Amino acid sequence: MDRYGGVEAGGTKFVCMVGSGPEDISAEIRFPTTTPAETIGRAVDFFREQLRSGPIRGVGIGSFGPLDLDPASPAYGFITTTPKPGWADTDLIGPLRELLQAPVVIDTDVNTAALGEYLWGAAQGIQQFIYNTIGTGIGAGGIINGLPIHGMLHPETGHMRIPHDLEMDPFPGICPFHGDCFEGLASGVALRERWGVPAEQLPVEAPAWDLQAHYIALALVNQICMISPQRVVLGGGVMKRAGLFPLVRRKVQRFLNGYVDRDEVKSEIDRYIVPPVLGDRSGCLGAIGMAQHWAGDLGPGKQ
Amino acid sequence: MDRYGGVEAGGTKFVCMVGSGPEDISAEIRFPTTTPAETIGRAVDFFREQLRSGPIRGVGIGSFGPLDLDPASPAYGFITTTPKPGWADTDLIGPLRELLQAPVVIDTDVNTAALGEYLWGAAQGIQQFIYNTIGTGIGAGGIINGLPIHGMLHPETGHMRIPHDLEMDPFPGICPFHGDCFEGLASGVALRERWGVPAEQLPVEAPAWDLQAHYIALALVNQICMISPQRVVLGGGVMKRAGLFPLVRRKVQRFLNGYVDRDEVKSEIDRYIVPPVLGDRSGCLGAIGMAQHWAGDLGPGKQ
Repeated sequence: MDRYGGVEAGGTKFVCMVGSGPEDISAEIRFPTTTPAETIGRAVDFFREQLRSGPIRGVGIGSFGPLDLDPASPAYGFITTTPKPGWADTDLIGPLRELLQAPVVIDTDVNTAALGEYLWGAAQGIQQFIYNTIGTGIGAGGIINGLPIHGMLHPETGHMRIPHDLEMDPFPGICPFHGDCFEGLASGVALRERWGVPAEQLPVEAPAWDLQAHYIALALVNQICMISPQRVVLGGGVMKRAGLFPLVRRKVQRFLNGYVDRDEVKSEIDRYIVPPVLGDRSGCLGAIGMAQHWAGDLGPGKQ
Repeated sequence: MDRYGGVEAGGTKFVCMVGSGPEDISAEIRFPTTTPAETIGRAVDFFREQLRSGPIRGVGIGSFGPLDLDPASPAYGFITTTPKPGWADTDLIGPLRELLQAPVVIDTDVNTAALGEYLWGAAQGIQQFIYNTIGTGIGAGGIINGLPIHGMLHPETGHMRIPHDLEMDPFPGICPFHGDCFEGLASGVALRERWGVPAEQLPVEAPAWDLQAHYIALALVNQICMISPQRVVLGGGVMKRAGLFPLVRRKVQRFLNGYVDRDEVKSEIDRYIVPPVLGDRSGCLGAIGMAQHWAGDLGPGKQ
């Protein structure tokens, strides 16, 4: 099997792998995200070590953003305007390309995770689906018409505006740009700020989870109305909370109120709104899949 | 030039054309939407008459919905659950297919209008864009990754949920399913109900238009965050109001608040949020384009 590299470049940790798919990973490393020089240096060191066992045909990177994904831009593959200290204007692909002398391709962390679930996980072969991550921050990616969602930029779904009843929930939201956008109300950071304890310390029966499901369901309803996905995958740390999925599903049904007359959202919603199958590995495996796709070995668009 | 037929099947009027594009329409007819039998009968009569001048290679239909667009379904090409009296479970393509003995293809009115603008109008060759119509009702379609948006069903963008400040606007909304969804707050019907006069009778300087721009801008911000379109086309009767486009553009910029760092939404928004070029003809011309595309003569996906 040809070997490929995958990098999940997250705001708090990096994951690097070498292999060809979930059942064939020969090396894996995780380390915290510190400065760009140190962090990217560790990734380069990892792949340099792996080159001793044989060639690596290409590397895919799934990164936090915003990213420049325009192949015609001189800043292609750069993190652009992130508020994360030190990381603005960071070239993610240059150092790996120099080491490997092989194709290095990049997409958002959420589009890459979506690709992983599309190739090997909860959305295999589904041409229209959305992958949301509800964690420290909120983002979404997905596949539409068989390809990842790109456009003017890439999706920034966390910043969509949803109804916010200030009498029911006077919390103003924590987004520095928008206050009470989806991420401002429902990210892990927002949960901690609103309730004074980290999400994982909130009891399962706390009213926090009903409110949390309320906001997630509003966002999913907007995705369903706007894109009509054939499946919705919900990942990220916050979604690991026991009992949250059933709450979200019921509220999506209540908000749609029968208008979308499809079994997927009526009788079969347990199979429509689902967790990722690859868990925390979606992103890095999707990055490997992206590198394979680029090389013509695998993936959407290839017949 | 081969001749194709286009049908715009609207809730208040039907338009039928024969030709091959905006500069080559040899016949056109408009008539009110009454009962299915009478209305579809008039369309069949029109095309039967046109067959005297030569063959028609195929017909495209852009229709109000909800529609069954699943080619594997026995109800493919039917209007399904519409509240419009008499029109539920109406077969739109059967009678034309029987007459013409040629392919008859169908999509939503908004996807068809989007296709018209993509082929010959305000979004020529743009692989990711959204077409909204703000009229009696509200809908959206578009092109993503070079193809119309389909999925579980088709978009029902009018039913997305947006913030609604009841102190600023105590109007409860008119959507029978959701109350104050986007369509419930900002459709032509909602405007008339809220202000007591039809939209076209509201003075240009009325506060109604500021509120209207507010809701449209919130919906566009959600589309921009979720899909990142390269252009947004805004059609429909309500958008013909003088001064509404600049209000919407300014509010989109204010709501995004610099987060999406792109010239399109910063310095060049006049070219980013635009009216349709084909005006009221987008839908019917797009239907002709869809028929041509199906026959392999033209359109997205064909290389």
